[in-house]
Amino acid sequence: MIIRDLVITPIAFRDPPLLNADGVHEPLALRTVVRLVVDGGLIGLGEGSGGRRMLGLLESVRTAVIGRSVFDTSAIEQAVSEALGGDAGPVSRRDRRTVFSPIEVACLDAQGHLMERPVVELLGGRVRDAVPYSAYLFYKWAAHPDPTTGKPGVADEWGEALDPDGIVKQAHLLIERYGFGSIKLKAGVFPPDQEIAAVRALAEAFPEHPLRIDPNGAWTHETAVRVARELGPALEYFEDPVLTIPGMSAVAAEIDLPLATNMCVVAFEHIPEAVRTDAVQIVLSDHHYWGGLRRTRELGAICETFGIGVSMHSNSHLGISLAAMTHVAAATPALAYACDTHYPWNRGDDVVRPGGLEIVDGSITVPHAPGLGVELDETALERQHQVFLDSGRAERDDTGYMRRFQPDYDPILPRF
Amino acid sequence: MIIRDLVITPIAFRDPPLLNADGVHEPLALRTVVRLVVDGGLIGLGEGSGGRRMLGLLESVRTAVIGRSVFDTSAIEQAVSEALGGDAGPVSRRDRRTVFSPIEVACLDAQGHLMERPVVELLGGRVRDAVPYSAYLFYKWAAHPDPTTGKPGVADEWGEALDPDGIVKQAHLLIERYGFGSIKLKAGVFPPDQEIAAVRALAEAFPEHPLRIDPNGAWTHETAVRVARELGPALEYFEDPVLTIPGMSAVAAEIDLPLATNMCVVAFEHIPEAVRTDAVQIVLSDHHYWGGLRRTRELGAICETFGIGVSMHSNSHLGISLAAMTHVAAATPALAYACDTHYPWNRGDDVVRPGGLEIVDGSITVPHAPGLGVELDETALERQHQVFLDSGRAERDDTGYMRRFQPDYDPILPRF
Ligand SMILES: [Mg+2]
Ligand SMILES: [Mg+2]
Repeated sequence: MIIRDLVITPIAFRDPPLLNADGVHEPLALRTVVRLVVDGGLIGLGEGSGGRRMLGLLESVRTAVIGRSVFDTSAIEQAVSEALGGDAGPVSRRDRRTVFSPIEVACLDAQGHLMERPVVELLGGRVRDAVPYSAYLFYKWAAHPDPTTGKPGVADEWGEALDPDGIVKQAHLLIERYGFGSIKLKAGVFPPDQEIAAVRALAEAFPEHPLRIDPNGAWTHETAVRVARELGPALEYFEDPVLTIPGMSAVAAEIDLPLATNMCVVAFEHIPEAVRTDAVQIVLSDHHYWGGLRRTRELGAICETFGIGVSMHSNSHLGISLAAMTHVAAATPALAYACDTHYPWNRGDDVVRPGGLEIVDGSITVPHAPGLGVELDETALERQHQVFLDSGRAERDDTGYMRRFQPDYDPILPRF
Repeated sequence: MIIRDLVITPIAFRDPPLLNADGVHEPLALRTVVRLVVDGGLIGLGEGSGGRRMLGLLESVRTAVIGRSVFDTSAIEQAVSEALGGDAGPVSRRDRRTVFSPIEVACLDAQGHLMERPVVELLGGRVRDAVPYSAYLFYKWAAHPDPTTGKPGVADEWGEALDPDGIVKQAHLLIERYGFGSIKLKAGVFPPDQEIAAVRALAEAFPEHPLRIDPNGAWTHETAVRVARELGPALEYFEDPVLTIPGMSAVAAEIDLPLATNMCVVAFEHIPEAVRTDAVQIVLSDHHYWGGLRRTRELGAICETFGIGVSMHSNSHLGISLAAMTHVAAATPALAYACDTHYPWNRGDDVVRPGGLEIVDGSITVPHAPGLGVELDETALERQHQVFLDSGRAERDDTGYMRRFQPDYDPILPRF
């Protein structure tokens, strides 16, 4: 089953003004959809990072992928890496894995269709029938400001969340709609005491829900240790309070709470130092930059071997990624935490047909249909591709967007 | 595709009198063949450890396997572990993995037949088209002694090898027949200076062949360090000169040669200490006790992450195992050394039809046929099963067999 074409489509889709330590989400999030065409016209779907640089890297490996068997994902991984210059070239291993990831997912989707098996069964089969996701809360503005005047727009369906009450209200909305059984708060936006107050309000409103907080490295060592001590047992885990492996290791040495990361351990090369210095107790997997679904299962095996927990990270994404995340989470024994997903924030512009995967009672039932179990909506893909073209956007820039409204915004971390 | 039956067949097959640090191989080696029967009568093949204890453990998990989908290998792995009592039970994790391994191989063989793909493609596909094996040399007697008189029997086709000349002659025979490109000497049998002389003779006779020596932990720390210094750059790697992770770590600290093991790191639980103490530079994988083919690929990923090389271990085995070893070696990027195999010593009694896999120019071309690419010879299986029944044998006992001829034989290690 030979790969005859790799169609790479950059897309953009609406994103609410979600605040984080870098600034604020722009009105459009960027993403790339790949369609891998095999003999007979069957198509495998993949979704990966967006922006023009990723688009250029994906285009540059296209000829290295075409002509290979869709079953030879390891050889394709090597070919992609070599086409990008390998270890001697200018593209980091992490970026090479990021380029390979949507191609691998598309290969596995195609394999699944060819063999009439769900992708999870190409990875060893289900160790869980449903994959739990967490409610991913963000401080947010009520709406994107008017781009010319900077004045507030009409509030979106989620409304404003700039204090504990707003955060609790948002949590209620997400949990009513999706039944999430655990909660993550994106922090690093306001002074820590305000964010501590938000976690306390969540703990009071949702006493049964495990809680996480993730300031994306916005805190100093002292702040991180203080927050850990103040929130202590209210938290399930404490995600990236500070930057770098040595920074996390120093915090870990002073607190009891497990530290999680998707910032300082983001490639296999980072694991030895993290293990040696006991810097993190949980790694957030993400098949988009760990190099695909098989590599994510391998990451799980590494973490299990070293007594490190496994959770899952998310960026703004649509339904193809959600399906891939669900299949690999179902196949990875070590993945014992509810996964992150931005899907509720972005699903309005999805490029897969509705009804494929739904979050019910906080979980997605692992599809039994062949491949990823989602069907491309070609009209929607074309529509979101046009949105990308019309936007003139090149790369995600949360800081630049924030500075349009707060010109003195300083993104340097740690902030607090 | 539901598993309707798991047919477990203990077999015995002829084995030459190969000497090692435990004693000498008995006239019959023991092994277990599993046949997994799925809907429609299709059969998946697996081969694993032999003896009555393993037979009992396999029989005890049979009902936990029957009724499951052949695609749910991870769930079967968990069910097998639980049927054996899990972590709280009397069966070690390594033994539970050993029980699961032939079942997983049989599942993958069946999957491959159902989907008309070779097993290697269920593991990510080939990263090499042919898998190199090494010439596995043994000190040996010319023949098994007469069981009643203890007198020498008629020499087998390999003849005697009790000194450097005999070892070099054996290497010539194996390399003429199979074209092996590297050589391993099983040592720990004679005083180290004799074995050093054998390696030197091999280096002179085969100057282009990488050489390895494996005394199975028969040496003291001082002997190990001395041998490493005397043989030094003549060796590709130095396998299990001493016992235990601390023992290997202490040797590693004093020598330049990479240390390899299939004795002190034989389960995922052993890896953290080995990494922390830099005890081994190469791990010999073996899907039979690491828990199957997918787990072996995961072991490769762990080793790669920590800068540890990967080779492959062998016990006495037949063609089903050879096929499984070849598929997983072809699919594991980190496996960069020629693999061990006992196959030339045991192939005369194989239970698969000839012609499936052949060692040519030292390598086996990875099959493109569905599944493992080998076909069971049911008559041969029945024959070797009868040999097992007639033998009355229960477990491998190299020491007990040696003591029949040398009653004062002392197996305590280190010996030299
Ligand atoms: Mg994070
Ligand atoms: Mg060995």
